[in-house]
Amino acid sequence: MADLSHTESLEKIFEKYIPEAELKEVKRILYGRELQPLEIAAEAKSLSEKNDFEIQGYKFSAPEEELRTPRVVRIAGIQSKIVLPTTASLKEQRDAIHSKIGKIIEAAHHCGVNIVCMQELWNMPFAFCTREKFPWCQFAESAENGPTTQFLQELAMRYNMVILSSIMERDENHGDMLWNATVVIDNHGRVLGKHRKNHIPRVGDFNESNYYMEGNSGHPVFQTEFGRIGINICFGRHHPQNWMMLGLNGAEIVYNPSATVGHVSEHMWGIEARNAAIANNYFTVAINRVGTENFPFEFTSGDGKPAHKDVGFFYGSTFVTGPEGSRTPGLSRTRDGLMIAEIDLNECRQVKDLFSFRMTQRLDLYADSFKKASHIDYKPQIVE
Amino acid sequence: MADLSHTESLEKIFEKYIPEAELKEVKRILYGRELQPLEIAAEAKSLSEKNDFEIQGYKFSAPEEELRTPRVVRIAGIQSKIVLPTTASLKEQRDAIHSKIGKIIEAAHHCGVNIVCMQELWNMPFAFCTREKFPWCQFAESAENGPTTQFLQELAMRYNMVILSSIMERDENHGDMLWNATVVIDNHGRVLGKHRKNHIPRVGDFNESNYYMEGNSGHPVFQTEFGRIGINICFGRHHPQNWMMLGLNGAEIVYNPSATVGHVSEHMWGIEARNAAIANNYFTVAINRVGTENFPFEFTSGDGKPAHKDVGFFYGSTFVTGPEGSRTPGLSRTRDGLMIAEIDLNECRQVKDLFSFRMTQRLDLYADSFKKASHIDYKPQIVE
Repeated sequence: MADLSHTESLEKIFEKYIPEAELKEVKRILYGRELQPLEIAAEAKSLSEKNDFEIQGYKFSAPEEELRTPRVVRIAGIQSKIVLPTTASLKEQRDAIHSKIGKIIEAAHHCGVNIVCMQELWNMPFAFCTREKFPWCQFAESAENGPTTQFLQELAMRYNMVILSSIMERDENHGDMLWNATVVIDNHGRVLGKHRKNHIPRVGDFNESNYYMEGNSGHPVFQTEFGRIGINICFGRHHPQNWMMLGLNGAEIVYNPSATVGHVSEHMWGIEARNAAIANNYFTVAINRVGTENFPFEFTSGDGKPAHKDVGFFYGSTFVTGPEGSRTPGLSRTRDGLMIAEIDLNECRQVKDLFSFRMTQRLDLYADSFKKASHIDYKPQIVE
Repeated sequence: MADLSHTESLEKIFEKYIPEAELKEVKRILYGRELQPLEIAAEAKSLSEKNDFEIQGYKFSAPEEELRTPRVVRIAGIQSKIVLPTTASLKEQRDAIHSKIGKIIEAAHHCGVNIVCMQELWNMPFAFCTREKFPWCQFAESAENGPTTQFLQELAMRYNMVILSSIMERDENHGDMLWNATVVIDNHGRVLGKHRKNHIPRVGDFNESNYYMEGNSGHPVFQTEFGRIGINICFGRHHPQNWMMLGLNGAEIVYNPSATVGHVSEHMWGIEARNAAIANNYFTVAINRVGTENFPFEFTSGDGKPAHKDVGFFYGSTFVTGPEGSRTPGLSRTRDGLMIAEIDLNECRQVKDLFSFRMTQRLDLYADSFKKASHIDYKPQIVE
């Protein structure tokens, strides 16, 4: 497979070569309005240097309103590599990741972050490419009181932070089923609820449909002290209607914890979460894992290549988009990182008032059209 | 208003400053797989030089299949400025545009183009910013046999070309109502049908809801000799469900004839039509008009600025996206132009088989959820 790990980031290339005036125009056309960088706290900088992760922060400012006070919060995404080889004991693998992420969350605390989320299945390697059930299914744990949830509850309380944690869930109340779920832990350490992945991939080496079924939790939006949060897990970002239902339920911020590799999706990465922010007038945070994960045995290729031992290069590039489509640069393609955005939640409604996308949506028409199109005897509207 | 007309295109900046190896990587991350340029016929080049328009062409190649033959066609989009001042007689304005576009369609013919579409309301200035009904409503004409349709029918027959024509429609059979419609003329010069704009903007100076209502033609897909074509007119590109219904009806190519200006939408332009191509696995052609159109009287600003005489800078940047999300560069931001893509329609189904977006779409779930959400007493799914 082609080595896609050489480039640190698109933005670094732009900044290296393009003169200032043109660079400004490139950024305007590609990324939208100019976002001011946030000052990063010294304690956070020191943690990032000691533990080799990047921090970037930007400010989305919104006009002040006369009849509402601003609702300014700081939201963040964390991207990371696994720590130990996939052949180490599962407990050691998990503990090593917990420990590393604990330090990045501490840095987020020093930066005044109110809500944080890691990538999809952040506490384990993304092992579904192996098609092996064991040992990987052992990583599954209770959303309500598994070891990863307990680890994060303690941090949520300590830092007064909402933490979203994407895990493989073991559903003990329903015969030990597996799910791909994201747990929402509020800033008092309470498990507020969970969202289960609605759309499960069957693409190339992403064989997740072997492991768990389509989610049955609907499109919940979690009301926290820092805003209303929705979650669209990984492959769900290819499905605009999944994003839309979260908007209809009132989400102001939608997290997209992902795990995706360069040769499959990198050219789409900047498109989908951003399109969702535009169409639904909320903030989106798209988070991807980093690095290449090697497994002990070769596995079949799902896309016409020889058998291999890794699923490809996870290219990081975590970024935040605002409700009118302006976005931050991406984090590094190759390093662990923390992306912070200071936002005013009031901007969501301001943009709705400006663009009227929600009011011009004709939801009833599409409810009827989708229903008809889902019938087995549907006749498409074709003019010949 | 800031002058946004200096930059010729993003791609020209990249090519001027970024060295070859890094440029390749920038293009891969931003635009996807490498598309080979098409050779442009000498007659077309000569027309473009004489009449001052740009031609770009690219080839989207698809793997050959064993059980279907390739279905290779050439599709194109035309972007243009108006020709005469908005104070000239309406007939002269229209005739001058017809004449100019006739030459670009002739160039398309020399390039072997099978399907072509111009920008939204290509035969008139985009006058809705004025809030004046007169004289502009006089531009409206019958979709079936108005002068613009007749003009294009002749070209369609002469060049064996399908032509899509976005006009203000005068619906004489229903009490002289106005619509924003796109007429589909087949390669034998027959009016195959029309599609009416489903989503009408109320944004800033885009006051179209003063002029015509939401379309009542559903989401037709037109079966032509060169593929199944859908149309999503301008503002409809902000509505993912509008794109999706065209996909559900079997579209292989969806045209998005638009008229949109820099300060409103330029940072979204590369996102939405491309997201639609990815989500629905069809080709999209996003076409925008070019230039600044001045009107005789000042009109109120819809976005907090002083009254003014133009709606802003139409930034062109027409581009084509393939069904797996790779795209062409954009045409110029400032010049008339013709964008051609050679495509294999078979790629749509190939990408569907690879990604399974359609099969993992859970349409029935969303039909039910949208229906519930459209009820006046809807209670959003909020977890507190």
